[in-house]
Amino acid sequence: MKLADLPKNDCQWLRGVGPMHDVVISSRVRLARNIAGMPFLTKCSPQQQQDLEALLRKTLLEAQLAPEMLYVDVQQACELDRQLLLERHLMSKPHAKAEHPRGLAVSADETAAIMVNEEDHLRMQVLRSGLQIEQAVEQIARIDEKLEARLDFAFHSRYGYLTACPTNVGTGLRISTMLHLVALKLTGEIEKAFRAARDLHLAVRGFHGEGTEAVGDLFQVSNQTTLGRSEQQIVEEFCTQIIPQFIRYERLARTSLFKRNALAIEDKICRSLAMLRSARLISSAETLYHLSLVRMGVHAEVIKDVDLKTLNALFLMIQPAHLQKVRGQEIDSVTRAVVRAEYLRKTLGGN
Amino acid sequence: MKLADLPKNDCQWLRGVGPMHDVVISSRVRLARNIAGMPFLTKCSPQQQQDLEALLRKTLLEAQLAPEMLYVDVQQACELDRQLLLERHLMSKPHAKAEHPRGLAVSADETAAIMVNEEDHLRMQVLRSGLQIEQAVEQIARIDEKLEARLDFAFHSRYGYLTACPTNVGTGLRISTMLHLVALKLTGEIEKAFRAARDLHLAVRGFHGEGTEAVGDLFQVSNQTTLGRSEQQIVEEFCTQIIPQFIRYERLARTSLFKRNALAIEDKICRSLAMLRSARLISSAETLYHLSLVRMGVHAEVIKDVDLKTLNALFLMIQPAHLQKVRGQEIDSVTRAVVRAEYLRKTLGGN
Repeated sequence: MKLADLPKNDCQWLRGVGPMHDVVISSRVRLARNIAGMPFLTKCSPQQQQDLEALLRKTLLEAQLAPEMLYVDVQQACELDRQLLLERHLMSKPHAKAEHPRGLAVSADETAAIMVNEEDHLRMQVLRSGLQIEQAVEQIARIDEKLEARLDFAFHSRYGYLTACPTNVGTGLRISTMLHLVALKLTGEIEKAFRAARDLHLAVRGFHGEGTEAVGDLFQVSNQTTLGRSEQQIVEEFCTQIIPQFIRYERLARTSLFKRNALAIEDKICRSLAMLRSARLISSAETLYHLSLVRMGVHAEVIKDVDLKTLNALFLMIQPAHLQKVRGQEIDSVTRAVVRAEYLRKTLGGN
Repeated sequence: MKLADLPKNDCQWLRGVGPMHDVVISSRVRLARNIAGMPFLTKCSPQQQQDLEALLRKTLLEAQLAPEMLYVDVQQACELDRQLLLERHLMSKPHAKAEHPRGLAVSADETAAIMVNEEDHLRMQVLRSGLQIEQAVEQIARIDEKLEARLDFAFHSRYGYLTACPTNVGTGLRISTMLHLVALKLTGEIEKAFRAARDLHLAVRGFHGEGTEAVGDLFQVSNQTTLGRSEQQIVEEFCTQIIPQFIRYERLARTSLFKRNALAIEDKICRSLAMLRSARLISSAETLYHLSLVRMGVHAEVIKDVDLKTLNALFLMIQPAHLQKVRGQEIDSVTRAVVRAEYLRKTLGGN
């Protein structure tokens, strides 16, 4: 796979086919690993950073983790490419913004992405459509095993895997789901749901993870504790208790919205689709607001001529770097509003 | 013609075909006349009011003013019918609300409408599409002549025709045009235009005349002075100086809007049409706001699949009494918002 193919890549996690996909957009698991005998990244000399990048690049390409693995030299990549990878949730904001030697390996279906020299030497991620935490954990475990066969990871018999930040020590495992909580937002119950989440030691974040805003009513809910508990315990609690509870809340809120005033919510949904199909100028924020309502409308069968895969892809495609990649040139934000509107009309059959 | 046919009547003044119809929706002239030897209406006894109504009804039906003349006994008419006639600009609000014996004669094409026992014994109106003041004056003069051949009008050799209110004494002629000043409203220049109008002793009023609000950026501009000037002078000044000036201002404002940021105004127009074509619930006020922008869009050829006649008719059809007449029953305002949205989607080909 080439980097240039990414914007139009039919990536697995956006297909909208996984379990509970009315509420759960995607499931993500992450492992943090460091090479034994090497300092954590912030303590590395420039030479050590470079050596690490070279070693890990070679290992990732040789380990046959997935067919057609793409490796991006992030230090050499242009800003637009880095922005694109960020928008596709394949790497973190700090990784995009940094300047030291670093890289990123991505599988062709984009389910697997491994950052080299982020906060830890290796940050592996598996991202899948719908509620597929267990499947994602299995997939990442296979990657971890393949790499561990070639690399010596820093491990402490009592603490577990050692990581640059103490919150990741132990399993190094973080699980998160991207939830579409549009009805809880509309009914104003979302704050209550978030308070409950914080009581369960969960972190609730925006569309692009730590320090970002929620857009399009999409929220990342993830576990916070990695130390002192087994991977299995973490996964089980998350999959059988926590996320199902969010799904129940959101589904109840949707039902109650339609029960209370079906016509009012249908009106909102139909107008949102009409805006996306007719605007000549539209911002990201407004687009995401409408996409969110339309997504609920598709699940509620208010809208029948738009499919979920198209909608999920639009959440990515209308972002700045994607628009510029599709257009094939850098464009300013005013022109982007025009290009975005054109893209929406074309994709959604507007006029 | 029957009253029941009115809501779907293809009335002349809404056809959108007259001169300058991009800005001038319609032209209206009105004459006020009173029967000599009878007191003005407020001074009449109930018996005199009844006698007047009977006499004038008979005269109007016999005078062959227009083919298929409809006469409505307004005192007997139900509230919905009175509201309908008001919405169609065929009678005034006070005439709709009063309780004494009174009537209304309407020609089949709705260009001519004559109120019996309004403020004056007779209030004749001619309403035509676009800028057609001269034609309207000719038409009303013919009606006036035919009636004067059968009735003795109160006339003073020095003051002219006598009327209940001194502002109408003289010719009894009032001229007005319904102007669509959407661009002047958007550019914020409308107040300036209105100040200029007041300096010229013009009255600027809302959609339904005196004491009503402007809706859909439609304004009634009319002359105020009737005393001491000939009909010809009034008409000439109005048609060759005053209204052309308004038209120039509005057209300049439209050009400048498109010149400054064509895409922004096209965006506004396209979104308005999309709202009308997609809403499931919509108020009169919101509908008129969108109709106004769409009307400008049709003239600017931003919108090509909607015709002016349809749009002009919608300004009437989405009003409460019209919706109820079309539906064939009385409906509350919440249901009207649903029926209005359905009607708009059906008429404009929405989904």
